[in-house]
Amino acid sequence: MNFEYTEKVQELQHRLEAFMEEYIYPNESMYEEQLNKEDRFSTVPPIMEELKQKAKEKGLWNLFLPESEYGAGLTNMEYAPLCEIMGRSHIAPEIFNCAAPDTGNMEVLERYGTDEQKEKWLKPLLDGEIRSCFSMTEPDVASSDATNIRTSIVRDGDEYVINGTKWWSSGAGDPRCKIAIVMGKNDPEAPKHEQQSMILVPLDTPGVHIKRVLPVYGYDHAPHGHAEIEYDNVRVPASNLIWGEGKGFAIAQGRLGPGRIHHCMRTIGAAERALEDMCTRVKEREAFGKRLSDQGVIQEWIADSRIEIEQARLLTLKAAYMMDTVGNKEAKAEIAMIKVVAPNMALKVIDRAVQAFGAAGVSDDYSLAAKWANIRTLRLADGPDEVHRRAIAKYELRKNH
Amino acid sequence: MNFEYTEKVQELQHRLEAFMEEYIYPNESMYEEQLNKEDRFSTVPPIMEELKQKAKEKGLWNLFLPESEYGAGLTNMEYAPLCEIMGRSHIAPEIFNCAAPDTGNMEVLERYGTDEQKEKWLKPLLDGEIRSCFSMTEPDVASSDATNIRTSIVRDGDEYVINGTKWWSSGAGDPRCKIAIVMGKNDPEAPKHEQQSMILVPLDTPGVHIKRVLPVYGYDHAPHGHAEIEYDNVRVPASNLIWGEGKGFAIAQGRLGPGRIHHCMRTIGAAERALEDMCTRVKEREAFGKRLSDQGVIQEWIADSRIEIEQARLLTLKAAYMMDTVGNKEAKAEIAMIKVVAPNMALKVIDRAVQAFGAAGVSDDYSLAAKWANIRTLRLADGPDEVHRRAIAKYELRKNH
Amino acid sequence: MNFEYTEKVQELQHRLEAFMEEYIYPNESMYEEQLNKEDRFSTVPPIMEELKQKAKEKGLWNLFLPESEYGAGLTNMEYAPLCEIMGRSHIAPEIFNCAAPDTGNMEVLERYGTDEQKEKWLKPLLDGEIRSCFSMTEPDVASSDATNIRTSIVRDGDEYVINGTKWWSSGAGDPRCKIAIVMGKNDPEAPKHEQQSMILVPLDTPGVHIKRVLPVYGYDHAPHGHAEIEYDNVRVPASNLIWGEGKGFAIAQGRLGPGRIHHCMRTIGAAERALEDMCTRVKEREAFGKRLSDQGVIQEWIADSRIEIEQARLLTLKAAYMMDTVGNKEAKAEIAMIKVVAPNMALKVIDRAVQAFGAAGVSDDYSLAAKWANIRTLRLADGPDEVHRRAIAKYELRKNH
Amino acid sequence: MNFEYTEKVQELQHRLEAFMEEYIYPNESMYEEQLNKEDRFSTVPPIMEELKQKAKEKGLWNLFLPESEYGAGLTNMEYAPLCEIMGRSHIAPEIFNCAAPDTGNMEVLERYGTDEQKEKWLKPLLDGEIRSCFSMTEPDVASSDATNIRTSIVRDGDEYVINGTKWWSSGAGDPRCKIAIVMGKNDPEAPKHEQQSMILVPLDTPGVHIKRVLPVYGYDHAPHGHAEIEYDNVRVPASNLIWGEGKGFAIAQGRLGPGRIHHCMRTIGAAERALEDMCTRVKEREAFGKRLSDQGVIQEWIADSRIEIEQARLLTLKAAYMMDTVGNKEAKAEIAMIKVVAPNMALKVIDRAVQAFGAAGVSDDYSLAAKWANIRTLRLADGPDEVHRRAIAKYELRKNH
Repeated sequence: MNFEYTEKVQELQHRLEAFMEEYIYPNESMYEEQLNKEDRFSTVPPIMEELKQKAKEKGLWNLFLPESEYGAGLTNMEYAPLCEIMGRSHIAPEIFNCAAPDTGNMEVLERYGTDEQKEKWLKPLLDGEIRSCFSMTEPDVASSDATNIRTSIVRDGDEYVINGTKWWSSGAGDPRCKIAIVMGKNDPEAPKHEQQSMILVPLDTPGVHIKRVLPVYGYDHAPHGHAEIEYDNVRVPASNLIWGEGKGFAIAQGRLGPGRIHHCMRTIGAAERALEDMCTRVKEREAFGKRLSDQGVIQEWIADSRIEIEQARLLTLKAAYMMDTVGNKEAKAEIAMIKVVAPNMALKVIDRAVQAFGAAGVSDDYSLAAKWANIRTLRLADGPDEVHRRAIAKYELRKNH
Repeated sequence: MNFEYTEKVQELQHRLEAFMEEYIYPNESMYEEQLNKEDRFSTVPPIMEELKQKAKEKGLWNLFLPESEYGAGLTNMEYAPLCEIMGRSHIAPEIFNCAAPDTGNMEVLERYGTDEQKEKWLKPLLDGEIRSCFSMTEPDVASSDATNIRTSIVRDGDEYVINGTKWWSSGAGDPRCKIAIVMGKNDPEAPKHEQQSMILVPLDTPGVHIKRVLPVYGYDHAPHGHAEIEYDNVRVPASNLIWGEGKGFAIAQGRLGPGRIHHCMRTIGAAERALEDMCTRVKEREAFGKRLSDQGVIQEWIADSRIEIEQARLLTLKAAYMMDTVGNKEAKAEIAMIKVVAPNMALKVIDRAVQAFGAAGVSDDYSLAAKWANIRTLRLADGPDEVHRRAIAKYELRKNH
Repeated sequence: MNFEYTEKVQELQHRLEAFMEEYIYPNESMYEEQLNKEDRFSTVPPIMEELKQKAKEKGLWNLFLPESEYGAGLTNMEYAPLCEIMGRSHIAPEIFNCAAPDTGNMEVLERYGTDEQKEKWLKPLLDGEIRSCFSMTEPDVASSDATNIRTSIVRDGDEYVINGTKWWSSGAGDPRCKIAIVMGKNDPEAPKHEQQSMILVPLDTPGVHIKRVLPVYGYDHAPHGHAEIEYDNVRVPASNLIWGEGKGFAIAQGRLGPGRIHHCMRTIGAAERALEDMCTRVKEREAFGKRLSDQGVIQEWIADSRIEIEQARLLTLKAAYMMDTVGNKEAKAEIAMIKVVAPNMALKVIDRAVQAFGAAGVSDDYSLAAKWANIRTLRLADGPDEVHRRAIAKYELRKNH
Repeated sequence: MNFEYTEKVQELQHRLEAFMEEYIYPNESMYEEQLNKEDRFSTVPPIMEELKQKAKEKGLWNLFLPESEYGAGLTNMEYAPLCEIMGRSHIAPEIFNCAAPDTGNMEVLERYGTDEQKEKWLKPLLDGEIRSCFSMTEPDVASSDATNIRTSIVRDGDEYVINGTKWWSSGAGDPRCKIAIVMGKNDPEAPKHEQQSMILVPLDTPGVHIKRVLPVYGYDHAPHGHAEIEYDNVRVPASNLIWGEGKGFAIAQGRLGPGRIHHCMRTIGAAERALEDMCTRVKEREAFGKRLSDQGVIQEWIADSRIEIEQARLLTLKAAYMMDTVGNKEAKAEIAMIKVVAPNMALKVIDRAVQAFGAAGVSDDYSLAAKWANIRTLRLADGPDEVHRRAIAKYELRKNH
């Protein structure tokens, strides 16, 4: 056991941090300004494309993809601390082409896609030319239970016909979003976890209606956006099916492991930055004749935050390590644990920071409120806490005590 | 001791509930629609003025004002359960002319205002013709400590000159908002709690610049709005001073008691509705072969929510009772306690509801996320939790143990 | 609604408090000394009988029994604040003949007992001449589900024959304990809640074997004691059956309401005293150049304790009020709530006090550790928290939302 | 970074686990029986000495001592997982000669002792022939602040004279305990952290009075015992001083790092076993028609316990790693963190297990209650949580944010 990052990782960390300092932090507000110039969903702030170009030039591109000729060849363990750094700024992941849901979708295409699918969709995604969305959750059912899904994917000659309504198809608001991976049922009579398939649906296919984008605690998350999409008799070539009929659940499972690690690491980065912001703030302010940083209650918030961040990070790194060494399946308990731990930890840390900032904390003068709202969704996305806790308990109960 | 509302109160509760059912709940979405038709801060949804008229007709108007010829003659104890009902809908308090910060401002004018001030500002406020704001918090200092305040109110002949920047002047975004009560220092050399004064400043006075409205977790709270206001050499007649020089702190203290009770009761109403919504939802949904309402973890959320609401309500009612019987000053420990208890309780209850609603919960399809964001500000407004906890401890330590 | 105790109650409170000050607090350590003189289970400290006599003389005797010719004629609401005072000292309840499980057993006999049963057992219990135990919990099953109970009560001619093993028959260690109320099944084929009966078993009946007394976190709770009792072919006259065959569950339900109120009120008294002790302590000690009472974290403990105690008391009083006005059955949700709230609250308050006392807190130099251990059992006795939470959720879900 | 124990460690783990299975778990109750045969403080259960012999034979002896010719040559990182295993049984640490406070005292002697001191005291301690205690805490002051200490150590010719009262001198109850390390002030005028010295005091020195042993939540912890010791004009040779005058604080600091790691690792082992016990139990019991292990609330307890244990273990291992690589001083933040994390985590896990066991959990039929009480002291020993939290906050605030 050792707790040191390798030299390779440390070198990447330093380059990434330098990039953040030089290009990203100073441009966060510029990004918002550019976004607000026009309708927030119709254009992409030019600064984003500039910085993506810059990241490519610096070789900080597609760091996320493990075990693949397409990526940077990093293991999950190696990528994790880099992903954490990206999580410190809400605009950073996209700049490095490491943003959800593209990373997950690229992994799906890389693992299960045909050559044709790769050529057509994976390549432009890896190049950062287009973006993608993932259409899984449905408004009418508890989608944490995948067997509840109602959208149908029915074979009709050389095509599949898709019908159903999805929401929280995140990223579909972006003008660059060209492709959706849609989960649906092709055979409701098959065994429970073989009823579902996944299929590629270009967003300009007739019958694809983006009905609206859903806000998150008042934030629109433009230009990304969380879309409600109606798939109304949408026809795509049969070759758009991923892997095969009935493989939807298996793909979803495979997709989730890395996706969760990424979310957790970014979340830890967000928490770290919130703690730093809190420390800076309380050293500056005074109340009742004493600096806030000298007040016991505030010190307790800082200590608990530090304690919780450290623990969450270590557990996430261990999960990444296990994914690399024994595989996503064997690491399932650890993945479930960090899925519960990281967002809850970050919400606590950020909420303490909000409190320390006073009224400023709930506004957008600082990134705390937005960050909190964003991370709050992670207690629901990819399965709510309670579903993961149940899974953890089941793994535990199966052990030979 | 008895835990029954009086017949008078019960009768008012029934009338109020009937009004909510008939006029308010069905019009909540209409209010939003009307607001979105134009710039959200430039007009007031017509349905609001219609419903205000209706409430006046039904005699459900100005119920909040205790011990005054102007109000409905209800005690705090009698008003509390009514205020709770209003808290169930975010548009309700204004409909009954019982919305913050107007209620607090009206109480200040009623208690400390001159006849001229009452005629000019209290009357139209009581009639619901204008609205008001309260300019206390400042961006540059920890305003929970009133001695930190920097805005100056300086006598110059027959006028006072006001200089300073305030923010979280809630309500100043509303086109009907005509008057601000501004807290500032007139004598920085006076004893600590006699340096401050409060003064009436019409918003159309030269030098009053509303610089922006601040969002709360992404919500703009239009048309109300939380404004940052610059007071730049603002001159008002000396007769606009409230009560007298150096009375600012005393007025603030007097203002806070009832204001807190109102906030707490509304918060309890909001929590009650969130719990109802959660119960309704979990009875409808199914996951993993079982209704959510039959799952132990969800049942625990419901039980804990019920337990916490009941306790918070009783403590708030007791505080109201003490304000009526022994006075706001003697009730200060209880007022501080509910100030901590009610928002924290409601945030927990609503957050559980969000979780039970899944992704829908963080959106605006339901009122939960907006409600949470709104109530989150109450852990900061009128003093953050930690300041109140400190006060509670001091009262406790002073007892003769 | 009003939050004032009646004059009658206030007068009793004062008399009770005076008695506590004069006779009980100063004799707590004497009680322990006398107990330690011999085997802790073989004799009763003489001071106990002296003080019981004193309490009788002062008319502070049997205050617990509502609606009965035998008791002091107090309602639950009136008794509650008195019971709280008794809860401040672990030796007090017995002194006033208001100790568990005697109070619950007396209520059972008063309500459901025959004249003969009353004459033989209720009378000496009311006189404080004997004590009693309640044999319900069994070691081999989850007894929170009464249908799990295995002890059998079988009619055989003029007798019932009892077989089974019970534990946590609290009080059976006391040499004065003469009678047990035993719960068992007389008809395993009857409807689920009509299988059980309760029967009176004198402890000197052949076949009654007290196998051991169980410690609670290292405390033996002598001379009271929590006994494991084997009932081995125990024969008692058929007239010892209470109420009738199949009535066991109904009696248990009836017994629990008042029992829980009493436990909760005593628990609140215990928490109050712990908070007082904590305040006294932190005013005396200094660390790192500051009195503990001036340290923010300690102040937060005090504030939270005060807040939690106030709320728990009000909810318990409300439950008592409802028992008096609408009956135990209608008050079942409130009774379940306080059953969860009061012990958990007290455990938190006492644990904070332990922490504030440092190492002294875990020892027996102060009563905190013993108090904590004692109250910890209340999260299990009469049904564990989780069973009550489930019940509360069910009541809530049944409401017409 | 990697999360695998080395082969060397794994091999030791297996041998240790095998020893636990074969010799320790089966003899836990025998130990208690032997202890209860006579006065619990006058003899040592023979099984203990037998098992110590066995452990020596198997080469599982003195595993704790890092960087020393006397120990097994394990690093903190290597010892940590072994120490965890020992923590699973309350009798295990002593069997391997790895019990507190001997380990800490041996480290002190190894690092700071003279050859004479080593020969006389370290050797028999390493051989398990005698035991020792550490006399630091005082009843009259908040000892978490070492500058509060009042015991005096005054030079008088060739001797030092010691006066003062200590308590929580754990282990002094044991008939084999021969030596105390006593902390006192030799120069109250010196700089704050150079006033204290540590000195070796044989317990049979005239003037050493063991006044009593203090219980912990009703447990006497015999034969170990937590003693209150009066040092009344105790004279020892000047050569008994450790390191030098004024070095007491420095020694205490050095002693604490490893001591805390050991406590934390044992605590994690205790929590693991509690979780295992809970899992076993809930699989066996049924209530309301369902196995406890199938109930959502119980599953949540299990999941949260697993999550908390994993995180605490990783953080503790990281602290051990840092002690080995950058030194105890650089690892101070991590050491403080685990000091807060591990006991609080274990208390939660064990308390959930108690609840899952029902009334059995609070008794001594299972080890849960005793374990809880024991670990509760660790939130106070070596500095209470709040002191460590404050330190963590200070380290954090000093970072260059």
